[in-house]
Amino acid sequence: MTEGFGEFDQIKKFMAPLSEKAKGAFGLTDDAATFGISPNHVCVVTTDTLIETVHFMGDEPAFDIACKALGVNLSDLAAMGARPLYYTLNASYPKHLNESWLAAFCEGLGSMQQSFDIALIGGDTTGTPGPLTLSITAFGEVPNGAALRRNGASPGDDIWISGTLGDGNLGLKVAQNILNDPSGLLIERYRRPSPRVRLGQALVGIATACLDVSDGLLGDLGHILTHSQVGAEIDLECLPFSKAARDLGLKDSELTESALNGGDDYELLFTAPEKHTESIIETAAETGQPVTKIGRIVEGCAVKLMRTGQPVEDFEPKGFRHF
Amino acid sequence: MTEGFGEFDQIKKFMAPLSEKAKGAFGLTDDAATFGISPNHVCVVTTDTLIETVHFMGDEPAFDIACKALGVNLSDLAAMGARPLYYTLNASYPKHLNESWLAAFCEGLGSMQQSFDIALIGGDTTGTPGPLTLSITAFGEVPNGAALRRNGASPGDDIWISGTLGDGNLGLKVAQNILNDPSGLLIERYRRPSPRVRLGQALVGIATACLDVSDGLLGDLGHILTHSQVGAEIDLECLPFSKAARDLGLKDSELTESALNGGDDYELLFTAPEKHTESIIETAAETGQPVTKIGRIVEGCAVKLMRTGQPVEDFEPKGFRHF
Repeated sequence: MTEGFGEFDQIKKFMAPLSEKAKGAFGLTDDAATFGISPNHVCVVTTDTLIETVHFMGDEPAFDIACKALGVNLSDLAAMGARPLYYTLNASYPKHLNESWLAAFCEGLGSMQQSFDIALIGGDTTGTPGPLTLSITAFGEVPNGAALRRNGASPGDDIWISGTLGDGNLGLKVAQNILNDPSGLLIERYRRPSPRVRLGQALVGIATACLDVSDGLLGDLGHILTHSQVGAEIDLECLPFSKAARDLGLKDSELTESALNGGDDYELLFTAPEKHTESIIETAAETGQPVTKIGRIVEGCAVKLMRTGQPVEDFEPKGFRHF
Repeated sequence: MTEGFGEFDQIKKFMAPLSEKAKGAFGLTDDAATFGISPNHVCVVTTDTLIETVHFMGDEPAFDIACKALGVNLSDLAAMGARPLYYTLNASYPKHLNESWLAAFCEGLGSMQQSFDIALIGGDTTGTPGPLTLSITAFGEVPNGAALRRNGASPGDDIWISGTLGDGNLGLKVAQNILNDPSGLLIERYRRPSPRVRLGQALVGIATACLDVSDGLLGDLGHILTHSQVGAEIDLECLPFSKAARDLGLKDSELTESALNGGDDYELLFTAPEKHTESIIETAAETGQPVTKIGRIVEGCAVKLMRTGQPVEDFEPKGFRHF
């Protein structure tokens, strides 16, 4: 571990407490850390970099930046159906950040750790002449061969989405003062993703394909279609919106646009045969995570947008690359 | 995975081939990757960030930057006695880097992969308005409870070092045109660390403490002493130097200084009871990795520098913080 802004003492003060539940972190004092995987399980690993001015604005509370950095990685674990275990943090701090910033940042990490039962197991703290750069690598586990993938959707499968769509994108516009949301919920959805970790694990053995929606419904659905070599129909009237989104007073087409092509929702998009409908609804209730059926997988390789059973001709799906 | 400079096609072109041997990388197309750990083994994880102008100059060949970024992580795995398995790469590229730079960078990664039997299993490619920032997280495995740690040294143990000392620091001075090395070996040692991966694995069950020397012998020895709560005597006349270092024509005290307080050597510093001397020498021969006995662990908490059995009073160990 290199010492920069954080220095040795600050790693000890702020980071080491976050590693207390990870015995193999050795208090962040050794060359590396160790951890075990349950028998008949594989390790699931994902990593995401967030850079100030590229992936976040920089004027957010440090607490929220931590929630987002860990949240987007937890969302990837959720998309694979994995149980979160540990994460490493590579943090490169510009000079203007001070100890109180770091304290709030670590408070955000600690809050996420508690919510999702994950612990810090290692990392590297450095200074940088560039923008704040955060890379988190998260580890989880899933039974052998059970990881949810993008390539298992078949014609006839239903298409489901967790939670509500468009909030992340609308929250960004609130943060940019383009929209006004007195409830504060949309900006919270943008800044503090709620990874659907319990739902993802419950979908193992049920979902045929799954991913998390980070770039808008159409773009991410495209990944499932490409890897599964299928097409899809989406019922626009079924897209789920939050009360906060509806209360903005936008036109229906603007809400739909935010769902289809907005980003940062971190909901799970998954497919499953119709016979699993009941168990999916039960699973949703058990995990406290609402889900909505929004369409179906069909033969072909295109997305058809539908309204009350009829193709919508006049809606241009901007985010979708034909393939 | 986010697309930045690399874009989707460049990940496919340059990165995906590096993941071919990692089946659970899914060609770098899914939300996360999966890998298994051998029965009765634990996963060893380490991570290091290298930033242009902070950890490397930036004018090095891209091939060498890749070797260093992967090499320093492999060195941490070696220090734990772990067998390397996979790594993830978070690369944040400034705009001025082009495709030929990326091709050479990936060639360097590929060369290290082949030498150390490790494969890319995931990552995140982004653009950055700041300096080139590379975070690698490397995974290996080691039998349960067998990881080499920093805390097991006991009074009476011998202190050993692999390879030669000071080359990294002297190589930096060659790169800065402060020293002249026509052989080119020192600059190579600085830019392309040779992680002692085979030696580290062979030391499992033999070494009582081990780490890799990245910040100079005294500073890193200090970590073993702190965590093992012991002291040490170092025999200065035993410190191993390369022919290239000796050929610089420096004073003995300057060479010694580079060994004690220079950085970037990435040799293994380890302790072992005297009874293991023969097996250590055999291990060194088998792994093709010379080792030298340079001192011994003693009671106390201080480092004593010795020359032909007598304490050296006039040498100021700059890099060593008393504790």
